[in-house]
Amino acid sequence: MIVVMQQEAARAEVAALVARVEGEGFAAHESRDEGRTVVGVVGQGAERLRETLSAMRGVERVVVVAPPWKLASREWRRGGTVVEVGGVAIGGGKPVTIAGPCAVESHAQLLAIAEAVKAGGAQLLRGGAFKPRTSPYAFRGLGAEGLKMLRDVGDRTGLPVVTEILAPADIDLFVRHADVLQVGARNMQNFPLLDEVGRVGKPVLLKRGLMATIDELLLAAEYVLARGNSKLILCERGIRTFETATRNTPDIAAIPVVKELSHLPILFDPSHSTGARRLVAPLARAAIAAGADGLLIEVHVKPEEALCDGNQALLPAEFAALKSDVDAIAGVLMRERIAR
Amino acid sequence: MIVVMQQEAARAEVAALVARVEGEGFAAHESRDEGRTVVGVVGQGAERLRETLSAMRGVERVVVVAPPWKLASREWRRGGTVVEVGGVAIGGGKPVTIAGPCAVESHAQLLAIAEAVKAGGAQLLRGGAFKPRTSPYAFRGLGAEGLKMLRDVGDRTGLPVVTEILAPADIDLFVRHADVLQVGARNMQNFPLLDEVGRVGKPVLLKRGLMATIDELLLAAEYVLARGNSKLILCERGIRTFETATRNTPDIAAIPVVKELSHLPILFDPSHSTGARRLVAPLARAAIAAGADGLLIEVHVKPEEALCDGNQALLPAEFAALKSDVDAIAGVLMRERIAR
Amino acid sequence: MIVVMQQEAARAEVAALVARVEGEGFAAHESRDEGRTVVGVVGQGAERLRETLSAMRGVERVVVVAPPWKLASREWRRGGTVVEVGGVAIGGGKPVTIAGPCAVESHAQLLAIAEAVKAGGAQLLRGGAFKPRTSPYAFRGLGAEGLKMLRDVGDRTGLPVVTEILAPADIDLFVRHADVLQVGARNMQNFPLLDEVGRVGKPVLLKRGLMATIDELLLAAEYVLARGNSKLILCERGIRTFETATRNTPDIAAIPVVKELSHLPILFDPSHSTGARRLVAPLARAAIAAGADGLLIEVHVKPEEALCDGNQALLPAEFAALKSDVDAIAGVLMRERIAR
Amino acid sequence: MIVVMQQEAARAEVAALVARVEGEGFAAHESRDEGRTVVGVVGQGAERLRETLSAMRGVERVVVVAPPWKLASREWRRGGTVVEVGGVAIGGGKPVTIAGPCAVESHAQLLAIAEAVKAGGAQLLRGGAFKPRTSPYAFRGLGAEGLKMLRDVGDRTGLPVVTEILAPADIDLFVRHADVLQVGARNMQNFPLLDEVGRVGKPVLLKRGLMATIDELLLAAEYVLARGNSKLILCERGIRTFETATRNTPDIAAIPVVKELSHLPILFDPSHSTGARRLVAPLARAAIAAGADGLLIEVHVKPEEALCDGNQALLPAEFAALKSDVDAIAGVLMRERIAR
Repeated sequence: MIVVMQQEAARAEVAALVARVEGEGFAAHESRDEGRTVVGVVGQGAERLRETLSAMRGVERVVVVAPPWKLASREWRRGGTVVEVGGVAIGGGKPVTIAGPCAVESHAQLLAIAEAVKAGGAQLLRGGAFKPRTSPYAFRGLGAEGLKMLRDVGDRTGLPVVTEILAPADIDLFVRHADVLQVGARNMQNFPLLDEVGRVGKPVLLKRGLMATIDELLLAAEYVLARGNSKLILCERGIRTFETATRNTPDIAAIPVVKELSHLPILFDPSHSTGARRLVAPLARAAIAAGADGLLIEVHVKPEEALCDGNQALLPAEFAALKSDVDAIAGVLMRERIAR
Repeated sequence: MIVVMQQEAARAEVAALVARVEGEGFAAHESRDEGRTVVGVVGQGAERLRETLSAMRGVERVVVVAPPWKLASREWRRGGTVVEVGGVAIGGGKPVTIAGPCAVESHAQLLAIAEAVKAGGAQLLRGGAFKPRTSPYAFRGLGAEGLKMLRDVGDRTGLPVVTEILAPADIDLFVRHADVLQVGARNMQNFPLLDEVGRVGKPVLLKRGLMATIDELLLAAEYVLARGNSKLILCERGIRTFETATRNTPDIAAIPVVKELSHLPILFDPSHSTGARRLVAPLARAAIAAGADGLLIEVHVKPEEALCDGNQALLPAEFAALKSDVDAIAGVLMRERIAR
Repeated sequence: MIVVMQQEAARAEVAALVARVEGEGFAAHESRDEGRTVVGVVGQGAERLRETLSAMRGVERVVVVAPPWKLASREWRRGGTVVEVGGVAIGGGKPVTIAGPCAVESHAQLLAIAEAVKAGGAQLLRGGAFKPRTSPYAFRGLGAEGLKMLRDVGDRTGLPVVTEILAPADIDLFVRHADVLQVGARNMQNFPLLDEVGRVGKPVLLKRGLMATIDELLLAAEYVLARGNSKLILCERGIRTFETATRNTPDIAAIPVVKELSHLPILFDPSHSTGARRLVAPLARAAIAAGADGLLIEVHVKPEEALCDGNQALLPAEFAALKSDVDAIAGVLMRERIAR
Repeated sequence: MIVVMQQEAARAEVAALVARVEGEGFAAHESRDEGRTVVGVVGQGAERLRETLSAMRGVERVVVVAPPWKLASREWRRGGTVVEVGGVAIGGGKPVTIAGPCAVESHAQLLAIAEAVKAGGAQLLRGGAFKPRTSPYAFRGLGAEGLKMLRDVGDRTGLPVVTEILAPADIDLFVRHADVLQVGARNMQNFPLLDEVGRVGKPVLLKRGLMATIDELLLAAEYVLARGNSKLILCERGIRTFETATRNTPDIAAIPVVKELSHLPILFDPSHSTGARRLVAPLARAAIAAGADGLLIEVHVKPEEALCDGNQALLPAEFAALKSDVDAIAGVLMRERIAR
């Protein structure tokens, strides 16, 4: 950790800083650079002094050398993590596809969509039972009833189910009925919820918040890993920017950045990030070409009757065509890799 | 609500839209404008068709005429809302000041700070017992123990206490010990938590998420109001932008915008929005000059020993000087208003 | 064009608006919706009243139905525009690759790189002679001397040259020496420069500003087209967001959005948008998979000796490998399209 | 300057870096911190190696200790710069007010507005003769004719005139007719234009780009100062963010940040940053309370007939009331300062 002092820092301020560092049991190396005093703080765990030193008089800024996440880092686990869900390997090199409706609306609707996406090549089923909605007057999902429908339809079709949990108190219900517990974008920094899903043995799908940096995503992952759950899958779903032509801006660059920094698999959600049906396919192809471990895609048999986000859902035939494109791109990349 | 069709929309697509609108019991007025068909959808509650119509073939976009929040709107309650907490009126024209440490660290620390801020003119005491922290390895607060210290110090000094709640399950504990329940920026869209604080009779302080639009803040407010709790106070605390010279970008313009759109009082938090002690005073003065109903300020007797955010805490003397500036500005504005 | 009045707009304010609209020779259709008066303004060219009406008392906002660019719109020219440069077709379905150094440093350096990128499959050569630099103390390019080197090396290798123009006064020099005139991101709204490149017959490569919306990019394109130059190529190069893991955030979604809204070809620059060599290949593959018409890539034979942006330049061997990946992805997409 | 190596950097990569640093005549101090090698690079002017070292194998990032601008820095000139224009001191402690129409529309209009703002207390007159417009179809100003009207009206009323220059080639015309040369937000990084205004002896008003960081603003200032012109005034005018309730987000925090980092005076433009008449007064008051050296405000006698931006122009009476508020706030702050 490196402390850069202000140009006009007094000798006494530097001395106080050094004394504090040494008092906490770390070594302080002082030097001069570009008219400023720079103090290197060395020793295992020195990062915990970061805020304290920042608050001291005469300090301009503190530069942390190593990233603040450890269990989520590539260094922690050189080979990538593979999360297995009902026989499907996520992170194993071949991209997976998770598809289904935005919300569970009825047993019949869910079954029809599940059969359609299975026929189109999906390996897991997604669907929301508890829906986070920006307006209190919007449809908020079927709740526990919807969860049971997901379980039943998952069992009938043989597709493991992925669904979003909103409140820590619901954890038992989700452990019983879901195969993968999704933590949504708005809850990426809901720390009591992260603690809870970190304590159970079920796979967790953690979506990046639309206001979160990649560093914050990996720190949220660290919460889950630090509680003991290493069956963790990340998901990029777009960030909020000034551009309004798309609902959010899909951060495709986050995919290779996360794969470089972390051993965790990372999926991409083209449906929520763009908010527009006609953009789902090009962005899904882009994510796979950039190295994503899979896709999370909304599909509906009758989008214009959907209770939520119908304008971003693919029709089953569009989904099947996209799946074929995506497999072809993944195949090409694999051949290119082997050829070298 | 106005539906703009794509330029190349087919006659049949327009007809299907009109049929759908009429089938739902609303009136549809068709017209041509700039080469496009435009359909006006009229009738009480037509907004609920927004997503459905957006998902129909041939639709370019749907323009909603009225804002989606009602109970939070200025139209709902022409005179502004005044929230009373322990004899202090928030929103009544005279700005209030809430001050205290980032986190409750010990009974002695809290008492010392509470006495200092009271002497400096603060009317309420703030302090975190349950802290949301980006890293799982950071100090996360004293929990229930901290809440009890807040209650005790609040009673001793006569300052009502404001503190942040993180999980819906903790609601009883907070109702017992706190005077104002704060919902933090990261939880602005934690809907189960909004539901919970909306069901109790205690005042709620709702902070704007750092990536939330003003519309989303007012929709989050609508959650609390719709559950029956109208003792609601909003708080601007900076938004996330590309600028890194400050921790966040204080959105001072949000203050007059919220006051125009809503009847709810709005405070400003210069400490979290800037993240730097030397910027707290200029931004606090700016917020008051822009019409804020009060301030939420971090103060610490020994910032360099604070367990969190010491670099943004004011010393008691700095706080007292700021309070004096702020009162003078508020006084000037009041005189100017009366003179006209 | 639709004018939404404020909820509390007075009858006289609505009447004044209608009178103004009719006085300008347009028709005004009044209706009520969600408690507000809405006035439809109909007639060819009514958009020019937009600002005037916005400024009138009682007006909440003005909604423009059609986009403000015409010559750049897809409707204007259904089949896409193909720009031919020295026998290479840009926008014709097969992605093109433009490669070369950030800056021209010497004749020898440029020739070595040009030969390397040609061997790796590049069809055009890029290189900066006049460099826009954030700091006045950075290397600002060889100027006219550099332009002449580009011309000479372009002629020797048979690669047409693309290079950036900074000042309107330099137009003759660039027309003489360059094959494609690049308008850089910082100059996307340098209107005197757009006017100038719009008046000459040379192809223009217009890069999106890093804080420009897609609408603004198309309006900047409209400047060039309106001056009479239709040999126009667009380029996405990343936008500025809160994320700092990459220099900018490549907006891959902009590629299919632009192709939907406009007939102009659009390239992608993975080098400037990411600012990191190891991210160039994944993002370049992503852009092609999303439908880009080509790539603009920095290559250097000795990146660590480059006078600018060496950390984002590919080595010739890396470039050749990427070119092979990109061609394979483009081939797959073409096969998939034909199969349907 | 500090170079942080990647955790897995090879011994040879560190050695190559050190050799390069020493070969360029600087000293390299190697140390280990948090599992990484860190190399301190010491010596006058070492920053120029920044890009070169970033591009070397094994390097994670380069941390520059001192800011890259020198002539613009507070260290360069401890007392603040005061720019005098026609007897008015900008930066001298008392805030100045520059007011006038968005665009010069006619001699009569300009004269009426100039007399009105003078009566309301304005010290300088603003008005655009050459207008940068997003659309090629919008009113682009009266050009040279407008400049002459400004000169004449300035002379008649005794108000010095501030007006925007768009192209380097127009410099002589502006030197002849204007008192302050404004470089607009879109041209903040138009380096040939910065060079040109840096070479003349006239005061320059440099507006922050809506996509520019404060660092980039100060680097743009450095261009002007480095060419020899020290009569430089900065202006904050809002940045682009995700929030759409205001046209841009006024970055009030930038005011105290710039005053801390630089000796240059900084104004605030509430008209362009908010784009809404009713927000101009609260934001103008906020800027003064935060320490701005003055304001740049649009005023029009008939906003609904303005050829540009009528919806953000104040009426003369509104301007006069705002001027009185602003003077009262400035007075209070001055009294408070003296009292301490």
